[in-house]
Formats: sequence, structure tokens, C-alpha cells
Amino acid sequence: MDLTKEIKTKKTFLCVGLDPDLTKIPQHLLQTKDPIFEFNKAIIDATKDICVAYKPNFAFYEAQGPKGWESLQKTVDYIGDNHFKIADAKRADIGNTAQQYAKSVFEHMNFDAITLSPYMGQDSVQPFLTYPDKYVILLTLTSNAGSTDFQTKKLLTGDYLFEEVLQESSKWQNADRIMYVVGATKAEYLKIVRRWAPNNFLLIPGIGAQGGNAHEVIQHGINQNIGLLINVARSIIYAGEDINFQEKVRAKALEYAHMMAKHLINFQ
Amino acid sequence: MDLTKEIKTKKTFLCVGLDPDLTKIPQHLLQTKDPIFEFNKAIIDATKDICVAYKPNFAFYEAQGPKGWESLQKTVDYIGDNHFKIADAKRADIGNTAQQYAKSVFEHMNFDAITLSPYMGQDSVQPFLTYPDKYVILLTLTSNAGSTDFQTKKLLTGDYLFEEVLQESSKWQNADRIMYVVGATKAEYLKIVRRWAPNNFLLIPGIGAQGGNAHEVIQHGINQNIGLLINVARSIIYAGEDINFQEKVRAKALEYAHMMAKHLINFQ
Repeated sequence: MDLTKEIKTKKTFLCVGLDPDLTKIPQHLLQTKDPIFEFNKAIIDATKDICVAYKPNFAFYEAQGPKGWESLQKTVDYIGDNHFKIADAKRADIGNTAQQYAKSVFEHMNFDAITLSPYMGQDSVQPFLTYPDKYVILLTLTSNAGSTDFQTKKLLTGDYLFEEVLQESSKWQNADRIMYVVGATKAEYLKIVRRWAPNNFLLIPGIGAQGGNAHEVIQHGINQNIGLLINVARSIIYAGEDINFQEKVRAKALEYAHMMAKHLINFQ
Repeated sequence: MDLTKEIKTKKTFLCVGLDPDLTKIPQHLLQTKDPIFEFNKAIIDATKDICVAYKPNFAFYEAQGPKGWESLQKTVDYIGDNHFKIADAKRADIGNTAQQYAKSVFEHMNFDAITLSPYMGQDSVQPFLTYPDKYVILLTLTSNAGSTDFQTKKLLTGDYLFEEVLQESSKWQNADRIMYVVGATKAEYLKIVRRWAPNNFLLIPGIGAQGGNAHEVIQHGINQNIGLLINVARSIIYAGEDINFQEKVRAKALEYAHMMAKHLINFQ
């Protein structure tokens, strides 16, 4: 999938986070056979023409045991091939094990990309980069409070640790298929990120329920290929609680899509 | 479970890594209904009196889809409560999601501990530390080649990044229930680790199929509570290929257990 082309066509770089929590989804869905899938299906139906990507966070599915994995697989199948599908797994392991995992996520489940933690280094990431047309999205500067514990610590070189992640990973094989997670709560850091990763796509969480200034983030982050995916989960998917929740979900997603469209006026 | 007491009683601090790969397990097991569980069951039966812990690496189960999670749950149930059960998941996520995950691993699956990546900082780990009697095992200095990409980079303070992980995490709430993964391929670093974490348990991979000098590692790592779990996976679980594989598995595990017993002579 040519993500830049999709974004230009749809005039949106919205990614919808599919993080279904049984205590938060509209309660009438709990009577269905597979509430998580029914919820996701409703969200997808309400947003598919105004977003370019979906990102299920694996933790929400794993929390339901084997049944959760079935809901996840059904969700991925339902999304189909017209959207960029991100496995938000945030893990890492050494070669042998990483291969197993890459096979599972890319071949069996048919995701287009996976989020990984960089802490274990190149050989924990490389097995995922051997798949043509598949992407790795490295945790770089996350949107949570704990991101200052290590990510913004300074190295002897004077660079932040997250800058080292950008520099080091840019040397890895097939580095053009690496994207980076950069939290929108740190708009001032986006310029620094673009210095080391001028061409890569950035996946930006932290807009919506977690705060973050959307316009500032987009201005600092956008490049000649757009190069941005903005993920919004809670504030869209839990916009409504009753039987008509789909309308509220769509209305909220449209707010984000319209905001993004303004930044795409100069792109043909 | 009082891990130190168990180790003293059994005269071993062996942890067996349950990393079943369908292409490597004895092929006659492939005819059974659940080859992964049958393999694990055989390994557990052959080693339970000479090890104190089991560590299934989640990637091998996830690679099998929903069926893999059933094999994993059956395995955990079969291990029972007389061994320390480590969920080798190597992930991290923010509070909201981490809570879901902690619930799944500690409450539903009944594991005693989980491995986590430290990169996202305290709030990605804290939800796992709120469970009394459950442990977090932080990736600190791993045994793979990529560990030098970031973990051994020096900070402005002059410390390695992995030292910062030890120092920072020691300030977190319930830090006494944090253990650390320290690769045996880096025996020279174990002294440094013990400087910052004199009392914590260390989970040591990298002995066996991945190399690493066992005696040197143990001498540098052992403390007054023993404080060590040495994980061995491939060289034990794939010791045999035919119908009598259990005997070879046990013989190999005994080699490790005897080696460890020598270091436990002075502990009562």
C-alpha cells in the first residue's frame, strides 16, 4: 500500500486505535456472541472512509484469552486490504523468537506493520524487516509520563537516548521500512526527530484523551511525503455509549479528519 | 513462594525455558492432538524435581494463534503451584493497557512473574507491581548481539544505560519485587549489576545454546539469598529427538543442576 497516496486521496492521516475494553463499550453489545468484534466492526463501518489506518493494541485482546485472539483475527480480516493495519504489540525478542513472532503477525494475521521496543537492539528488530512491504514501528519517544525515565536521558554524545534510537536504527538493513512512535505530548521534540529521520513516517499517539497540541505537532512533523499517522483511540471509539454510538464515533472521527485536511491543502 | 527456600531445598536454581518449536520437537508428538502441550508436559515431568522455575516464551505460543494460547494455559495449569512461573512476554505499555495485561497474566493465567522492557519507564511497569507476591523481571542487559546498540551506551553521568535502568527502577514503588534479566554472555558486567542491585534476584539467560561461562557468572552474581535463576531452554528441551527424548532431557538438566549444586554447598 502506498500510504502517502492513500492520505492524499482521502485527505486524512488518521489512524483509529481499536482498543476495546468490555467495561467501556456500549453495553447492549455485551449480549452479542463476540462483543469485541461487533464493537470493532461498528467502529470500522463508521470510520473507514475517513481514516487510512487501524491499530489494534494487542493487550486488550490478550486480556480475553484465546477468545480475544479470535476477535482480533476477525477484526483484521474485516478491515481488509484497503487500510494500513498496525499490530500494536510493543515487544521485542532475539532472532530465533522474533522470527516466530514476525511469522505470526505478518504471515498468519496479515498485518502491515508492528510496533517494537528498541531496547534489545538490531537483532531483535531485523527479522521483522526482512518482509518486503511490511513495516516496523519503533518506540522512540512515547507519550506517557515514564518516557522521561530513560528516553530523554542524555548520552555522553550529548544526544538524548531517543536520538540514539533514531541514529542507530537508520543504519539497519531496510531502514527505509522503519517508522517511529513519537508522542504528541512532546511537540518540541518533533523538530529533533525530523533532523535524524527526515523521510520516515511517524506514528503519533497522545492526541485526544492523552492531551497534545495537534496543529503544533503536525507543523513540526509533516514532511514532503506527509510522513505522519496520527493515532486516536479512546476519544473516538468511546464517543458514544448508547444504541446510536456509531453516529457519535463518526462525528468525532470527522473532527480529526477535517483538522488534518487543513494541513493537506498544499499536497496534490 | 519463597524462592530462596525452594532453591536451598532442591539444591538448584535452574529455570527451564519452555520454548516449543514445532519444527524442533520430537516428530512423533506431531500426531497428538496438542503437540505443544504434550511436549511441555514431557519436559516438565522430566525436570520438575531438578528445577525451581519454568519460563514459557510467549512468542512460541502466539505463533500458533488462538490454539497456542490454549496450549500455554494448559501448560501453566500443569506446572501447578510448586514452581515459579515466569511469563516471558518482554513487552510494555502505558497504564491503561498495562493494567489489562497484568490482569491477564497474573489473574487469568496465574503466572508469578513477567518479563518487561524498561524503555517506556515507570508507569508502564507499575501496574504489574501492585500485585502482592507477583514479580516484574526487567530486561536490563540481554544476551543478544544487539544489547550493545543501546544497553551499553554511556550516559552523561558516566553510567551505562543498563545501570540507569537498575538505579531508576530501584526507586519505584514495590521495587523489592523487581528482578532483572542479565545476560550470561556479559559475565564481566555482573559485578556492576550487583553494585546497584545487591538484593534482587537476577534471571540469567545465555547459558547453553547461546554460550556464556556458567561458573564465572554464578560467582559474580550470587548473593546471600542466592538471588539467581539461570534459564536454560534449547540445550535442555531439544536434547533428544526420538521416542526416548525425555531421558536425554533429564540427563542434560541434571548436568546443569549438579553444576549449580556445587555453588550451593555453603548455603543451609
